Amino acid sequence: MTNDKVLYSNNGHLFVLLNISEPGEENGIPSNQYLIVKNGKGILLDPGGFGVMPQVLHHLMKYIEPDDIVGIVLSHQDPDIVGGLSSWMEITQAKIYVSKIWLRFLPHYGLKDMHRFEGIDDDGGDLPFNDIVLKLLPAHFLHSPGQLNVYDPVSKILFAGDIGAAEYQGDDLSDVFVNDFSQHQRRIKYFHRRYMTSNRALRYWLKTIKPYDIDIIAPQHGYLYKDEAKSGLLNWLETLECGSDLFNID
Amino acid sequence: MTNDKVLYSNNGHLFVLLNISEPGEENGIPSNQYLIVKNGKGILLDPGGFGVMPQVLHHLMKYIEPDDIVGIVLSHQDPDIVGGLSSWMEITQAKIYVSKIWLRFLPHYGLKDMHRFEGIDDDGGDLPFNDIVLKLLPAHFLHSPGQLNVYDPVSKILFAGDIGAAEYQGDDLSDVFVNDFSQHQRRIKYFHRRYMTSNRALRYWLKTIKPYDIDIIAPQHGYLYKDEAKSGLLNWLETLECGSDLFNID
Repeated sequence: MTNDKVLYSNNGHLFVLLNISEPGEENGIPSNQYLIVKNGKGILLDPGGFGVMPQVLHHLMKYIEPDDIVGIVLSHQDPDIVGGLSSWMEITQAKIYVSKIWLRFLPHYGLKDMHRFEGIDDDGGDLPFNDIVLKLLPAHFLHSPGQLNVYDPVSKILFAGDIGAAEYQGDDLSDVFVNDFSQHQRRIKYFHRRYMTSNRALRYWLKTIKPYDIDIIAPQHGYLYKDEAKSGLLNWLETLECGSDLFNID
Repeated sequence: MTNDKVLYSNNGHLFVLLNISEPGEENGIPSNQYLIVKNGKGILLDPGGFGVMPQVLHHLMKYIEPDDIVGIVLSHQDPDIVGGLSSWMEITQAKIYVSKIWLRFLPHYGLKDMHRFEGIDDDGGDLPFNDIVLKLLPAHFLHSPGQLNVYDPVSKILFAGDIGAAEYQGDDLSDVFVNDFSQHQRRIKYFHRRYMTSNRALRYWLKTIKPYDIDIIAPQHGYLYKDEAKSGLLNWLETLECGSDLFNID
């Protein structure tokens, strides 16, 4: 059990890890939810599955009221991200941002009010938020065919969705950062080799994020990356064979 | 609007297309649900999203009672397949078959009783059903990293999940089969280029299904393939560039 953790705070701008390690569902994979706050308004990143919603709300209300959530970004279409969305749509008036390729799939969660959704083009886009602009960056096929990252230019944090994700979660959550990437590799190797689609997709993503000054890579599952762990992750992904690379088609 | 359609019937063995064209949700993508019946017991393939469940149940009860559904196969983890599952789990005692890589993600739909799920290995497996054996064949990364096809050796129908899927649905549903593949291509081109991950994954799938004698390819969305349309689809997929093939990484 852990509490929320402020990753960045300066001049009314916060980037908060809201929740980690409490699946809320029977053997569900633990997932991270994040909140960006600026002048009392908030953007929620990957709100999480059906069972975690009350916990996430509890942590969130330390920072803002649900009414002050103006946007919710869904990195992709999976249930550990979207399963709790209908409750969030009821208690907020937030707009929902998601890759346009999932717009016709999401109603099958039983969601209504699809006019509150904004489909993001394959090249990504800008998400204006108060006096700053968050960047929605394409991270497609890693693993979802339509995945978005969120780059916050103030905190220099990149929310990377499934990239860098670890299914494992230790008990010691006093530090949410990866300490030793060479040790950490064994916790991400299976997931990245099995769920990511190709090295080509990884290298395209590395090219996409290259122009951005990134201090922290914040995945949707498991610990976060900064300093040597961040460069360790990026170097490791550069040459990783995964997904359909591993198929023997001869 | 259409009714269910029996695709194969012989000696107490049925393969039925249960429902087509009625999304049940606001602008949700139409999806096909299938039922295999053998001696009064049934296997349901891709039961569908939250909103379609009542319609599918209505069609299904022309053939069997919910109590007689002994298995439900989920081709993958998406909401147009799993969104209605909690209701199906309440009214049936069916076991649920899905790629093992999604077992820890599915609880986030708010599903309980995860002991009723059987995770299928990456190489696929056998699904014994009365006196026959259905084959669960891997179709990974097309688009989902963990996708299963179902081959019924009696009817020679391959349920292919998203492969061959068309987002488009015409009004004339008197015939559920593709009539002219060259005309049909434009209805599947965008979906396959954008959602499928690589030509390598397509060719691996073609290799996987090659040993099986297939009369009909039955996708989760849109019309079905037999005869020339079937061979047209398979030939078209062989050389299709898609997904991460299309990324410029230089």
